[in-house]
Formats: sequence, structure tokens, C-alpha cells
Amino acid sequence: MLVLDGKICSQHIKHELSQKVESFKANGKRVPHLAAILVGNNGASETYVANKVKSCAEVGYQSTLIRYKDDISELELLQAIEELNLNTEIDGILVQLPLPNHISELKVIETISPKKDVDGFHPLNSGRLVQGHPTFAPATPYGMTMLMEYFNIETKGKNAVVIGRSNIVGRPMSILLSGNHTYGNCTVTICHSHTKNLEEICSQADILVTAMGKPGFIKSNMVKEGAIVIDVGITRVDDETAARGYRIKGDVDFDDVATKAGAISPVPGGVGLMTIAGLLKNTMKAYLNNN
Amino acid sequence: MLVLDGKICSQHIKHELSQKVESFKANGKRVPHLAAILVGNNGASETYVANKVKSCAEVGYQSTLIRYKDDISELELLQAIEELNLNTEIDGILVQLPLPNHISELKVIETISPKKDVDGFHPLNSGRLVQGHPTFAPATPYGMTMLMEYFNIETKGKNAVVIGRSNIVGRPMSILLSGNHTYGNCTVTICHSHTKNLEEICSQADILVTAMGKPGFIKSNMVKEGAIVIDVGITRVDDETAARGYRIKGDVDFDDVATKAGAISPVPGGVGLMTIAGLLKNTMKAYLNNN
Repeated sequence: MLVLDGKICSQHIKHELSQKVESFKANGKRVPHLAAILVGNNGASETYVANKVKSCAEVGYQSTLIRYKDDISELELLQAIEELNLNTEIDGILVQLPLPNHISELKVIETISPKKDVDGFHPLNSGRLVQGHPTFAPATPYGMTMLMEYFNIETKGKNAVVIGRSNIVGRPMSILLSGNHTYGNCTVTICHSHTKNLEEICSQADILVTAMGKPGFIKSNMVKEGAIVIDVGITRVDDETAARGYRIKGDVDFDDVATKAGAISPVPGGVGLMTIAGLLKNTMKAYLNNN
Repeated sequence: MLVLDGKICSQHIKHELSQKVESFKANGKRVPHLAAILVGNNGASETYVANKVKSCAEVGYQSTLIRYKDDISELELLQAIEELNLNTEIDGILVQLPLPNHISELKVIETISPKKDVDGFHPLNSGRLVQGHPTFAPATPYGMTMLMEYFNIETKGKNAVVIGRSNIVGRPMSILLSGNHTYGNCTVTICHSHTKNLEEICSQADILVTAMGKPGFIKSNMVKEGAIVIDVGITRVDDETAARGYRIKGDVDFDDVATKAGAISPVPGGVGLMTIAGLLKNTMKAYLNNN
């Protein structure tokens, strides 16, 4: 059983990106620059943004973290984004979600210039993804395709099952896997809360991607012998024995599924790291388009 | 076996739309106005555009057909679209595809204002469709969902199989059927040229949507007992005995599949009429947004 190790893969990608940054510097050019906006002080959001900022530093990107209190008005936030859109020294913009209830996430996302939308959440970029045009794919599914490419997972003609139809994971993942790319051309089944025969459908999958947020839900009886299992479920489960009081758990019961699957991406050590790799790759793409 | 009759359904929709138009007139308002651009004189395109113009007249819409020779430059065409975008008396714009090779279809589609994109081909509208926001759905899959609604086809929790991943039919149809709508919530499998076990997959479908362009390809052995079969394949097949020298054939071998299916949308008399109904509904939506 192969472990699809997100640490090895993301380090490889970071190494490639940092070499590119070095070559920019050697040629007297500025480096890629990501602006991250954080509203309020939600604990998980703080951690995610801190990791993104740290990862930018690791590959030599500049990053700017802009913080607002959670009573910032929608208009003020939209104006702040407009300013970043116009700033030619900023290549990528991300606004950490979720936002306070009085701010429309859709308005915020649609205000970010599609050229700087390194999270790949703008509907224009979603539409380009669907239509197979160059775009920014959302960081998590993009990272997953990089992981599969890195470990030479064959996708063409395979039966893939994606559990979850969210805009940021399940839906774009189903589009990427079924599209006409090197990491696509799968026959894809997309499942969700209304799916009736989930166990039967999963057990026919050559590639199973799970983004449910139900810790340990996927057992070996739901997995085909030799299947590739990509675990995109990330849930904080309370655990008093852990230093932080919680552990990160995936949708897959790893030890059980490992007896049957051909490969599994672990949680932690899989999707989280690859999401950041996807964000860094998108930021590089935005920089190259911008220069 | 129920015939999902596109004629009955589209007449019902046209009747509803024409009543709305009458109410606009009674209130002294202008009527919805569609502008259609036709480049060159491809035979099939001439027929399609003529049908669209005629259907506008039937429901009381105004329409303007703008013709260009096939040597129009890309820039001239884009400028003509920009003018229509700015014209507040025009609600919907469609450019009949295909275009001559020297003109980028993507550039043309992205130049049409998303607010007037009644074909639903603009990536911004595709992205809104994917993300579940209000948008213009492409006319053919939109028409198919109206047909299914009209005939009270239950979709929630059903296994749907869509054959074809084109931007104008298969892909948006798979998104609509798997989305969280009254005509959605299916578990959807999207198949294409790389799918290996097509017969087996089709024979498990409660709802089978076929958009292959392979006349008569779908036989009863590929269809589950009682399945709903939506035939979106439209191919001109040479036939000397026909008045025009050809007949329109669907992907489904109707007589054979009729022995097993619960319902079939016929070709002709199904998708073609519903595509026009979809276009007319989108034009009404554009008008209402614009007024």
C-alpha cells in the first residue's frame, strides 16, 4: 500500500517554486507577492492564514497579511479589495473564509480581480475550469491533482467517485477528474447527501475522493481492492490527550482501508499540505501572467 | 411508455411567455428583444437562427437578425457585440456558432455581456451555474430540465448517467442534475470517449441523458427497465426519401428502447424544441433583470 505523502510532494513543488524565485532575483526582478485578508480572529482561520504566510516565506514570495476587525463593513472590505486589484505589485489576493454574516462572501469573491484570484473561487474562473480554459483551479482539488501526478496515478478511463459537491472541493474535483487533461479523463460519479447507494457506488471506484467531513466514515467494505483513495476530509476532533486539545481526522479509517486500498493520501500529511502547494502554484501563475 | 413530448411542453412554455408579453404591452411597456448574429451562410446555422427568430415572433418578442459575411474581421464582430451590449433596448444577444476559423469563439463569447448572454455560454455564467447562483443555463440542458419538470420526473436521489462532456450540453446537464434544485439532487455519472464500461454504466441509470451524436447507438440492452431516457443527440442522416435529403436522428434507437424504458424524449420533437424554449425563457429572464 502506497502512502500518497503530501509532505514529500509539497516539498518537491516548493523546491521548484523557490528555484524560480531565485532566478527572478538573479535577473533583478521582483518576487511574487500574495496579499491575504483576515477578518476577525476565528481560531482555525488564524492557523490557515499563518500557514499560508509562512509557506510564502519558505519559497521566497513576499506576502502581506491585512487584518480587519469583524465589524468592518462590507463596503469597506470591497474597497480594500479594489485597491489591491489596482496595486500592480500584488499578484494574488485571498480573503480567508468564512466571513462574518453581515458580509456577502459571493460579493467579496466576485470583487477580487479574476487575474488575482489565487483561491480560484471567482465564478469566472470556475466557468473557465468547467469549459477547460486556462484558469486558477481551487487550491485543494488542484493540489490533489498534483499529488496524483507526482505519484504517477493513472487516471484515463478509470472510474472515479467523488463524495461531496461543494464549490471548493467536490465539484471542481469532479470537473478536473472528468476533463480532458493528463490528470483527467476519468468516468466520474459525483455523490452527495441525497445519494442512496453510497457503499455500492464507492466499492466500484478505481479512484475514490472523499470530502464529507465525517471522520473515519470510509471503511474497507466501501473500497475496491487496489483502489486509490484521496482523503479530502479534514475535521478537528476533540482529544484531551493531544497538545492542542484536538486532532485532525480524515474521512477515511486509515488502518482499516489500508488493508485493501492500493494507495491512500493520509490526514494529516496529505490534503492540507497540497492545498498550500496549490495556492503557491496559483500565485506563481498570477505573477507570470502579471509580468 | 411515456413520450416526453417536447412539442406539448414547449407550447405550454410559449403560452406562458406570450401571456407575460401581453401584460407588458397592456402596461405600456416594451417587449423583450433578442439580437441574433449570423456570420456566413452555413445551412444548419441558417435553419437554427430562422427557427429562433420565428419563435420570438410567436411569443411576441421583438428580434433583430444581424448578418455578416464570413470575411468579417474578429475585431469588427467584437465591436458589433459591444454596441449591442450598450444598447438598452436589447435584452439578449446570441451569436450563432460555429464561427469562421479566423474568429475566436471564446473571445466572442466572453465579449457578450454576461447580463445578455441568453445562450449561457459565457464562463462567468457557467461558473455561477457550477456554484449554484442565479445565472443563464445553456438553453439545451435548461430546456431538458423544463421537460422533466413538466412531466413530473422525480430526480432526487436517482442515479443519472450523462453521456458527453461538452460545454453546451453534457457538462452543464451533469451539473444541473447533481445540483441542489427541484430538478436535481441526482447522483450523476459523467461518461465520455474514454469511458470503458459504458454499457454497464448506462444499464444502471434511472435517468439516462445521451449527447453523443451517434444515431441509434443506445439500444435496449443499455437501458434499465423503466428508466427515463433523454435523447440530446441530434444528427443529420442522409436519406434520399426525405424531402430535404436528410432526416434528424437521435442517439436512441427509439423503437427498441421503447420496449424497456419508462419514458423517452423523441428526436425530432424533443430536445430541439426545448432548446428554443430554453432560449426564450432566458431572454425573458434577461428582460426582467434589465427592467
